[in-house]
Amino acid sequence: MSSSQLIRVAVAGASGYAGGEALRLLAAHPFVEIGTLTAHSSAGSSLGEVQPHLRGLAHRILEPTTPDTLGGHDVVLLGLPHGASGQVAAQLPDDVLVIDLGADHRLESASDWEQFYGSTHAGTWPYGMPELIHAPTPGEAATDLATAARQRDKLPGARRIAVPGCNVTAVTLGLQPGVAAGVVEATDIVAVLANGYSGAGKALKPHLLASEALGSAQPYGVGGTHRHIPEIQQNLRAAGAPEVTISFTPTLVPMARGILATATAPLAKGADPEQVRAAWEAAYADEPFVHLLPEGQWPSTAMTLGANTALVQVAVDAAARRVVTVTAIDNLVKGTAGAAVQSMNLALGLRETAGLITEGVAP
Amino acid sequence: MSSSQLIRVAVAGASGYAGGEALRLLAAHPFVEIGTLTAHSSAGSSLGEVQPHLRGLAHRILEPTTPDTLGGHDVVLLGLPHGASGQVAAQLPDDVLVIDLGADHRLESASDWEQFYGSTHAGTWPYGMPELIHAPTPGEAATDLATAARQRDKLPGARRIAVPGCNVTAVTLGLQPGVAAGVVEATDIVAVLANGYSGAGKALKPHLLASEALGSAQPYGVGGTHRHIPEIQQNLRAAGAPEVTISFTPTLVPMARGILATATAPLAKGADPEQVRAAWEAAYADEPFVHLLPEGQWPSTAMTLGANTALVQVAVDAAARRVVTVTAIDNLVKGTAGAAVQSMNLALGLRETAGLITEGVAP
Amino acid sequence: MSSSQLIRVAVAGASGYAGGEALRLLAAHPFVEIGTLTAHSSAGSSLGEVQPHLRGLAHRILEPTTPDTLGGHDVVLLGLPHGASGQVAAQLPDDVLVIDLGADHRLESASDWEQFYGSTHAGTWPYGMPELIHAPTPGEAATDLATAARQRDKLPGARRIAVPGCNVTAVTLGLQPGVAAGVVEATDIVAVLANGYSGAGKALKPHLLASEALGSAQPYGVGGTHRHIPEIQQNLRAAGAPEVTISFTPTLVPMARGILATATAPLAKGADPEQVRAAWEAAYADEPFVHLLPEGQWPSTAMTLGANTALVQVAVDAAARRVVTVTAIDNLVKGTAGAAVQSMNLALGLRETAGLITEGVAP
Amino acid sequence: MSSSQLIRVAVAGASGYAGGEALRLLAAHPFVEIGTLTAHSSAGSSLGEVQPHLRGLAHRILEPTTPDTLGGHDVVLLGLPHGASGQVAAQLPDDVLVIDLGADHRLESASDWEQFYGSTHAGTWPYGMPELIHAPTPGEAATDLATAARQRDKLPGARRIAVPGCNVTAVTLGLQPGVAAGVVEATDIVAVLANGYSGAGKALKPHLLASEALGSAQPYGVGGTHRHIPEIQQNLRAAGAPEVTISFTPTLVPMARGILATATAPLAKGADPEQVRAAWEAAYADEPFVHLLPEGQWPSTAMTLGANTALVQVAVDAAARRVVTVTAIDNLVKGTAGAAVQSMNLALGLRETAGLITEGVAP
Repeated sequence: MSSSQLIRVAVAGASGYAGGEALRLLAAHPFVEIGTLTAHSSAGSSLGEVQPHLRGLAHRILEPTTPDTLGGHDVVLLGLPHGASGQVAAQLPDDVLVIDLGADHRLESASDWEQFYGSTHAGTWPYGMPELIHAPTPGEAATDLATAARQRDKLPGARRIAVPGCNVTAVTLGLQPGVAAGVVEATDIVAVLANGYSGAGKALKPHLLASEALGSAQPYGVGGTHRHIPEIQQNLRAAGAPEVTISFTPTLVPMARGILATATAPLAKGADPEQVRAAWEAAYADEPFVHLLPEGQWPSTAMTLGANTALVQVAVDAAARRVVTVTAIDNLVKGTAGAAVQSMNLALGLRETAGLITEGVAP
Repeated sequence: MSSSQLIRVAVAGASGYAGGEALRLLAAHPFVEIGTLTAHSSAGSSLGEVQPHLRGLAHRILEPTTPDTLGGHDVVLLGLPHGASGQVAAQLPDDVLVIDLGADHRLESASDWEQFYGSTHAGTWPYGMPELIHAPTPGEAATDLATAARQRDKLPGARRIAVPGCNVTAVTLGLQPGVAAGVVEATDIVAVLANGYSGAGKALKPHLLASEALGSAQPYGVGGTHRHIPEIQQNLRAAGAPEVTISFTPTLVPMARGILATATAPLAKGADPEQVRAAWEAAYADEPFVHLLPEGQWPSTAMTLGANTALVQVAVDAAARRVVTVTAIDNLVKGTAGAAVQSMNLALGLRETAGLITEGVAP
Repeated sequence: MSSSQLIRVAVAGASGYAGGEALRLLAAHPFVEIGTLTAHSSAGSSLGEVQPHLRGLAHRILEPTTPDTLGGHDVVLLGLPHGASGQVAAQLPDDVLVIDLGADHRLESASDWEQFYGSTHAGTWPYGMPELIHAPTPGEAATDLATAARQRDKLPGARRIAVPGCNVTAVTLGLQPGVAAGVVEATDIVAVLANGYSGAGKALKPHLLASEALGSAQPYGVGGTHRHIPEIQQNLRAAGAPEVTISFTPTLVPMARGILATATAPLAKGADPEQVRAAWEAAYADEPFVHLLPEGQWPSTAMTLGANTALVQVAVDAAARRVVTVTAIDNLVKGTAGAAVQSMNLALGLRETAGLITEGVAP
Repeated sequence: MSSSQLIRVAVAGASGYAGGEALRLLAAHPFVEIGTLTAHSSAGSSLGEVQPHLRGLAHRILEPTTPDTLGGHDVVLLGLPHGASGQVAAQLPDDVLVIDLGADHRLESASDWEQFYGSTHAGTWPYGMPELIHAPTPGEAATDLATAARQRDKLPGARRIAVPGCNVTAVTLGLQPGVAAGVVEATDIVAVLANGYSGAGKALKPHLLASEALGSAQPYGVGGTHRHIPEIQQNLRAAGAPEVTISFTPTLVPMARGILATATAPLAKGADPEQVRAAWEAAYADEPFVHLLPEGQWPSTAMTLGANTALVQVAVDAAARRVVTVTAIDNLVKGTAGAAVQSMNLALGLRETAGLITEGVAP
C-alpha cells in the first residue's frame, strides 16, 4: 500500500484512555488518515477538551457513536465499555476491519465469559496477539520455538480482531516460551503484577484518586476473581499446556502507566535448568516487539513507556524449583493500543511494525 | 519503670535511614532519653544537617562510633552496615541492651549466612519479632493459635536483640498463621513484593536515582538470590513448617516507604477452605500491631505509613488451590525501627506498645 | 487540667481528609477522649471502612451530623463543606468549643467573602493561627518582633475558632516576619505553591485521578481567582502592611501531602539586605512549630510530613531586589488539623504543644 | 533532501540523559542515520547496558570521545559536562554541524558567563530557539508579532548551534509575547518552576535519590544564583525589553520529566488587560511546537511528555496588576534534545518538524 492510499480509521470511545492512546499512535502512523472520533458523554466537545495532549487533533469534534458516524471507514477501533462493542460491530459492514480494545470478544469459552463477566458471551474474534505461540499438537510442547506457528499467521485478512487484556499480554509473553518448550509446568503458575493506574481507566472511583494512590501500593481482584485469568489460561493452552492453573494478583502502584509482571512456574520434571534460557531465546529471537534482555539485566516499566515493546527476563531459582520471569510493558501501548495497531497492520497486509516504535520514553 | 527514670538510648548510625527512623520514634517515647548519636562520614556534623526532619534533635552533634561514645547508656541501637555491628557490640558491656537493626545476628545457621552474605557469621541474637509463632513441637501445626507460644516470651531480660529484615517481617506475618495452623504447605511459597525505595538505604547507586524510579517499577534480587530468603525460612520453620521453599521477588515501585507483600502458599491437602480464615483470626486477635482486616478489605501501604502496624488480609483461591495473603507495613517502622522499639520495650519490662502508634499517616 | 479529666471531642465530617487527620492527631493527644464521629453519606458505616488507617477507631460507627449526636462534648471539630458549618455551630451551646476546619468563618470582610465565595458571609470567628504577628499600630512595622503581639494571645478562652486555609498558612508564615519588620513591601507579592493532592479533598473529579496526577504538574485557580487570596491579605495587614497585593498560583504536583510555598516580595526601600534575615530570626526564635532553617538549608515538604512543623528559609536576591521565602508544611497538619489542635490547646488552657509533634516522617 | 541521502549524526555523551534523549528522537527521524556514539566512563560498554530503553541501538558500542571517533559525520551532538564542548568542537571541521546540548556557548556576555559559571567563556554560538522573537529595534516593542523576526531566520546554514537551557525555554516562551508586544514590564519578573528530576542529570547526589524525592518538593538555586538567569535576560532583551530583572526559583517535584513554569510580570503601564491575550495569540498562531491553549484551559506537563511541544496559557490578574503565564514542556525534548533536532532541521534545510512530534504521552 502506498502512502498515497491512506487507510481511514475511526475511533469510537476517543475520550477514554484506550481510545486516546490509539489516536496518539495513529497520528504517527505513516499509512493512516484519522477519520471520525466518537464519544458518549463528551460527544459535541472538541477532542482538545478531553485529550489536550493530542495537539494535532485538538480541533476535532467528538461525534456520537452510531453506525452513521462510524460508516465509511476502512478500520473502526472500539474503545468502549464491556458489553457495548458487540452491538456496534454488528451494525458495521463485514468488510470493515473492526478492532475491539475491550474484553467482549477475547474468550473462546462462553462459560468462562459468563463465570467471570456475568453476562452473555458476545462471541469470539481473532485474537490480536501476533506473538502468541501455537503448539503443533494441543497439549504438547513444540520442538522448535523459532519456527513454531504464531497467532500472526491468522491475522492477515481478518476483519474482526479482539485485542488482548494488558495483564494477559504481560503474563503470556513472560511464560509462553517455557510452556511451549515444555520446560515449565503450567499447573501452578503464580503471577503478581505492579500496575500503573491508567489500566483502571477514567472512572471516578475513590481508590483511584491521586491522594489515595501517591505513596502507596494496593492490590485488587485478589483470590482468583480477576477477569484476566481465563484469558491467560486460554493463551497458555494454545502454547501447549494441557492444563493451566494460575494464582493472579495485580497491585496498583504509583505510576500512570506500565505493568511489571512477575510470573513464576514450576520447573518441569526432567527439565535441565541450564537449558531454560534457550527456550526464551528461541521464542523471541526474531520478534520485533518482544525482547529477551541480556542475562542479568532486568526490565523496568520506564524502558517501555510509550513504546510497543515487551521486555522479558527469565531466571531459574534452583532452590525453589521454579522459573521466574519478569515482563515489562506499557499497558496502554503493547497492552492495548499498540497491539491494536500491530494487528491492524497484519490484517491489512502492511508492514507489521508500521507506525510503532520500540524506544521507550526514559527516564 | 516510672517515667522519672528515663532509659538512656544511644543510636549508632544516626545519619542513615534506619537510625533516623529510630530517632523519630524514640523522640516520641515517653520513657526514653536520647543519648549519644554517632555516625561515620558525617561525624562532626549536626544531626540537622543530615536528618533535617528531626527538629527536636537538630542541634545534636554526631560523634564517631566508638566504645567510648556509646558508653554509659542503657540501650544502644546499631544502624550500621553489614558486618560492623558484631565488633561494636563486643565492646559494650553485657548488661547494656544492644539492638542490631542490621542483618548480622538474625540467622541461626552459619552456613545460611555464609551462603547468602559471603562472610563469617557473627553469631545469633534473640530475634526481635514478638509476634512470631513458635510451634509446640518442631514441624507440627499448633492446636490453638491464640494461645501458641510467641517470640515475645523470649525477649524479657534479653540484652542482645536482632531486628528482623523488613521483607521478612511482611512475608512472615502474612503466612505464619496458615503455616502454624497447618492449612497451607510451606514447600512452594511464592512471594512478590512492592517495595519503597528507602529499603535500599542512602547508598548512591544509579538505579536508586529519582529520575530512574519515578514512573517505573523494577525488580531486584530475583531468582533465589535475595538475602532475606533464609530468614523467612527460619521463621516459618519456627512456626511449624517441616520444610520451607520460597520463590521471593522484591520489586521497587515509586514510593519512599512501604512494603506490600503478596505471599501465596498451596492449600494444605485436606484443609477446609472455609476454615482458613479462622487461623488468621486466631493468630492476630490479640496482637496490638498486627491486624487482620475485615473480610473483603485489602491493605494498602499508606494505611501503615509511619505506624508500627502490619495489616494482613487472606483469601483462598479455590481454583488455584492456593491461599493468597497480602501484608502491608512501613518498612522503616514495623519493618525496622518500630520492631526495635517494640522489642526494647519487652526486653526492659515496659508496656510493649510504649512510644508506638498504630495510626498511619494517610492519605 | 489533669490528664484524669479528659477533654471529650467530637468530629463532624470524620470521613473526609481533614476530619480523618484531626482524628489521627487526637488519637495521640494525651488529654483527649474521642467522642462522637459524624458523616454525611457514610453515616452508618464504621470508621474502618472509610479511614482504614485509623486502627484504634476502626470499630466506631459514623453518626449523622445533628445537634443531638454532637451534643455533650467539650469540643466539636467541624470538617464540613463550605457553607455547612455556620448552621451546625449555631445549634451548639456557646460554651462548647467549636473549631471550624473549613473556610466559613475565617474572613473578617463580608464583601471579600461574597466576592470570592459567592454566598452570604457566615461571620468571623477568632483565627486559629497562633503565630500570626499583630502590628502594634495598624499599617506600621514592629520595633521588636520577638516580643510582638501574636494571635495566640487572643485564643485562651475562645469558644469559636476558625482554622486558617492551608495555602494561607504557608504564605503567611513565610512572609510575615518581613512585613512586620518593614523590610519587604507587601504591595507586589508573588507566591507560587507546589501542592499535594490531599488539599483538594476526596471529591471525585477527573483532574484528581491518579492517572492524571502521576508524572505531571498542573496549576489551578490562576490569575487572582483563588479563594485564599483575601485571607492572606487579611493576615499580612494584621502583621503591619498598609496594603497587600498578591499574585497567587497553586500548582498540583504528584505527592499526597505537602505544600512548598515560594513567596517573594520586593525589598523595602531603604532596607538593608544584611539585616533581612534578622527579622525572620526574631520572629521565629521561640516558636515551637515554626522554624527558620540554618542559612543555606532549604526546606522540603517531606521534612514536615505528618508533623505540625512549618519550615521557613529566606534569601535576598539583590539583583532582583526581592526577598525570596520558601516555606514547607504538611497541608493536613500545620495547614489544617494540627492548627486546630494547637488552637484547641490554647483555648482550653492546655500546653500549646500537647499532642503535637515536630518530627516529620522522612524519607 | 531525499531520504536516500541520510544525514549521519554522531552523539557525544550518549550515556547521559540529554544524549539518550537525542538518540531516542534521532532513531525516529526519517532523514537521519545514527553514527558513532561516545561516552566517557562508559566507553567500551554497549548502549543497551546504560540506555536499555533504546532498543534499536542496544548493540552499539560506546566509543571514547575523540576527534577520530567523531570524524566523518554531517552532524555531531554534544551532550557533555560544562566546559568540555568547546575543546571538542574546536577539533571538528568547520563544515560539520556541531550542536551543543550544554551551556557553554549560549551566553553572549562573557562577564555573565564568568559571574554565573566561574570559568572562562567558550564563546557564543547561534542560539537554538527558533521561536525566539527579535525586536525590530533593540528595546522596543514590535508592532506585529505574527510577522516579527524570529531566531529561526538565523539558523539555516549554521554550523555551530547552542541549545537553550530547559528552564530558560519554558520561561522565555511563556513571557516573550508580552515583552515583545510591550504589554508587560520585564523589570520585575517572578518565575517559579516545578521541575522533574531528569533535569538534574545522572549525577549521584544524595538529594537526587528516589527516597528523598518521592512524596516531597524541594527548591534549589534560590535567591538569584541559578545559572539560567542571564540566559533568560538575554532572550527577553532580544524580544524587546530594555532591561530584564527576574526572581527565579526552580523546585524539584516528584516526576521524572517536565517543567511547569509559572512566570509573572507586571502589566505594562497603559496596557489594556483586554488586549493582553492578543499578543500571545499573534506570537504563536503559526508556531508548530508552541501552542497557546484555549482560554481557561491550563497546561500540565503530562500533556507534553515525550513531545517537542510547549503549551502556554496566560491570564491577567487585574487586582495584582500582573500578567500570569504558565508554560509546560518536557525538559528533555523541547527543553533539550527536541530543540536540538528542530534546530538541526533548520540548519540543514530540512522541514523544521521532521522527526518531531507534538502528541504527548498522556496519561
